[in-house]
Amino acid sequence: MALRAALRNSCGLSGLLSRRSSCSTHGSVSPLLVAQQRNNSTSPKIDVEFDQSTGVAVMRMQSPPVNSLSLDFLTEFCIGVEKLEMDKGCRGLIITSNQPKVFSAGLDIMEMYGKSPERCGEFWRAVQEMWLKLYSSNMVTIAAINGSSPAGGCLMSMTCDYRIMADNPRYSIGLNETQLGIVAPFWFKDTMVNTVGHRTTEMALELGLLYNPSEALKIGLVDQLVPEDQVLTTAAQAMTKWLAIPDHARQITKSMMRKPTVDKLTSNRDADIQNFVSFITKDSIQKSLRMYLEMLKKRRA
Amino acid sequence: MALRAALRNSCGLSGLLSRRSSCSTHGSVSPLLVAQQRNNSTSPKIDVEFDQSTGVAVMRMQSPPVNSLSLDFLTEFCIGVEKLEMDKGCRGLIITSNQPKVFSAGLDIMEMYGKSPERCGEFWRAVQEMWLKLYSSNMVTIAAINGSSPAGGCLMSMTCDYRIMADNPRYSIGLNETQLGIVAPFWFKDTMVNTVGHRTTEMALELGLLYNPSEALKIGLVDQLVPEDQVLTTAAQAMTKWLAIPDHARQITKSMMRKPTVDKLTSNRDADIQNFVSFITKDSIQKSLRMYLEMLKKRRA
Amino acid sequence: MALRAALRNSCGLSGLLSRRSSCSTHGSVSPLLVAQQRNNSTSPKIDVEFDQSTGVAVMRMQSPPVNSLSLDFLTEFCIGVEKLEMDKGCRGLIITSNQPKVFSAGLDIMEMYGKSPERCGEFWRAVQEMWLKLYSSNMVTIAAINGSSPAGGCLMSMTCDYRIMADNPRYSIGLNETQLGIVAPFWFKDTMVNTVGHRTTEMALELGLLYNPSEALKIGLVDQLVPEDQVLTTAAQAMTKWLAIPDHARQITKSMMRKPTVDKLTSNRDADIQNFVSFITKDSIQKSLRMYLEMLKKRRA
Repeated sequence: MALRAALRNSCGLSGLLSRRSSCSTHGSVSPLLVAQQRNNSTSPKIDVEFDQSTGVAVMRMQSPPVNSLSLDFLTEFCIGVEKLEMDKGCRGLIITSNQPKVFSAGLDIMEMYGKSPERCGEFWRAVQEMWLKLYSSNMVTIAAINGSSPAGGCLMSMTCDYRIMADNPRYSIGLNETQLGIVAPFWFKDTMVNTVGHRTTEMALELGLLYNPSEALKIGLVDQLVPEDQVLTTAAQAMTKWLAIPDHARQITKSMMRKPTVDKLTSNRDADIQNFVSFITKDSIQKSLRMYLEMLKKRRA
Repeated sequence: MALRAALRNSCGLSGLLSRRSSCSTHGSVSPLLVAQQRNNSTSPKIDVEFDQSTGVAVMRMQSPPVNSLSLDFLTEFCIGVEKLEMDKGCRGLIITSNQPKVFSAGLDIMEMYGKSPERCGEFWRAVQEMWLKLYSSNMVTIAAINGSSPAGGCLMSMTCDYRIMADNPRYSIGLNETQLGIVAPFWFKDTMVNTVGHRTTEMALELGLLYNPSEALKIGLVDQLVPEDQVLTTAAQAMTKWLAIPDHARQITKSMMRKPTVDKLTSNRDADIQNFVSFITKDSIQKSLRMYLEMLKKRRA
Repeated sequence: MALRAALRNSCGLSGLLSRRSSCSTHGSVSPLLVAQQRNNSTSPKIDVEFDQSTGVAVMRMQSPPVNSLSLDFLTEFCIGVEKLEMDKGCRGLIITSNQPKVFSAGLDIMEMYGKSPERCGEFWRAVQEMWLKLYSSNMVTIAAINGSSPAGGCLMSMTCDYRIMADNPRYSIGLNETQLGIVAPFWFKDTMVNTVGHRTTEMALELGLLYNPSEALKIGLVDQLVPEDQVLTTAAQAMTKWLAIPDHARQITKSMMRKPTVDKLTSNRDADIQNFVSFITKDSIQKSLRMYLEMLKKRRA
């Protein structure tokens, strides 16, 4: 029940960022969050299974409780993606979650709360890196969204070529940053505009909207809904269809569609980091984050 | 019945611009249009009601017969918006009409017919000013569209963050400029592309389409339809939802979505005025406007 | 039955490009394709009927078997369009097919297989010319799509102001280049983004999707479906509606919507030709084309 409550918090209306539990991986034990026990930090946060016969890899995110995108997680994730990218035999990548009820709850709030500017900058560079690697990947990428996917989880999903979501009305997906007083940066915005268009993005971002699966399908934020136990098999079937297209033609086409968006961040990467750091380290923003964390703590008590 | 006929003219298929009645506010009595009596020019054209407890202001346009956007109207409107914008306590603005059956019939045709280039330029600058103020407003802006809203009325609606329209099939909304031989300038076009996308805008502008409420909802030109007597209360409810989002995060997000479009006009403002003036003062265009005015006169006779 | 099989090949899932039959118009007899007999090369490939009383011209493509866009065809087509464009009395153009079951099967594969770079470049310039002429035409252009319309046929349709398609589920439309290992260039992509938006284009181009009429209507790739025998009459009715708008206002509006897209090709025309030629003359691409041609031959055998 604690987990369910936690998920309601992190993935529901006010769920933007996931939060650490007591076993922090880099020493910043949060006195606020004690509801769940983390896996030992030395356990891999990503499970990669690559089938050479099909050329398809499946990445399962397994960072309890909610696959929060911490610096450690992102580092491991990017290394995993890069390895597959460099393997000529790997043509397709399916991303899914091994955690119940959640795909990824998004950026780890503890990476932004009470941290030094340097550390915040390092974290943000890792977030950029994840996006750059996925959005410009030469592989066919499919998100098998088997749980809630707010904020950074939604961003990760949107970088993929195709999105299949579990048809469970308790799950939600969206860029809900403003609900916490945070702002999605321009490349989150660009990715969403490329996916659902300008007006839907405008309203989604200003209101920090989270959509249930039916709503997400309707606005085009996901491409297909299936029963929860069929998400992964459907992803594998869809992958077959995508891999029927000659790689080079598909890759050139994908690059043509996405390169202008990728280039915008690539050529503004340092400025974007500076912008994030100066924003997130503001007293008012830190105060908002503290209040949010205290609210989570009270709810769990 | 005269009013109904007038509304059919100004807001129906061929209704782009509203027209003056006999009591002109700046001396250019039109011999053509005599069907309605204007309010005395010293009456305020806008009624502003600001509730400090909620932080929400309601602007009611009340320039009979059809809230045409004359220079006087626009000047008063912009002053009203600016006052609210500078009031830190005002977070939300609802725009609606006090006139029956019409939200705003758009630009006042009499400001463009038989006027000096200087005067036309002054008028156009005021139209730009209205758009700039509304489209980049820091307040949450909601259009409570309780009547027809062609041309400039549609533009005004599109600048808002949210659009609620009365579900009355006699009402219509759209940028119908081409029907009169006039052309919507690039920033009208940009605003519409941002709202309904490129292809819908292309067809809407080339054909000068006016949409009934159901059609407008379907293409995304308005966000919600409600019975006519609930337009304002629904706007107030929607406002509550928008104001639940921290202002600074919402404002930064709104600016991120709209700044490129705003900057395009800001950096081309004089050229855009020149372009309008040289177009509207052409003999052929003046002739079109005269024929339109005469048609209106005949219909009313 | 041979024809039906041919059409299934060229316009179905794998149908990107049409192929020559034995009577080549410029000497490069294909030993691979012998199923259909071409019209004598001196027959006009386009039938133009211009009604001065309505100001509307109808162009019927009649290059058996499937209106493939060869260099000869494109040259004749562009000359025909230019003549009408320069005739002040011609305000509208309806494009349709005189061939059964197909609007146009797209670029003629034989213009790209085993040809010299110079010849390929000449061909590509003609493809550009067709697009430039149609996409920036001052006339109202309506595509009366009375058959399948893959690849270049889809491009031609998308350049028009309005698209009416025969509601026959056996017909399909789309840019299916990647299915053959070919890539739609940026201006094909831009035209599609302008028509159906970014995300739909991304998926359509990466997968080389062909849509049946219902699907095409749903995504906005065509504007209206009617029974096959009403395509042309419906086009004529739609034309009346478009011609009710004053030409100059409609033309300025159309140019405002399309000029940025047109300018992008105009200022990169030579580079785009070079890019096409160096791509299409690659050994790997020539091999793909040969395999495709052999597959067609086998299917017909």
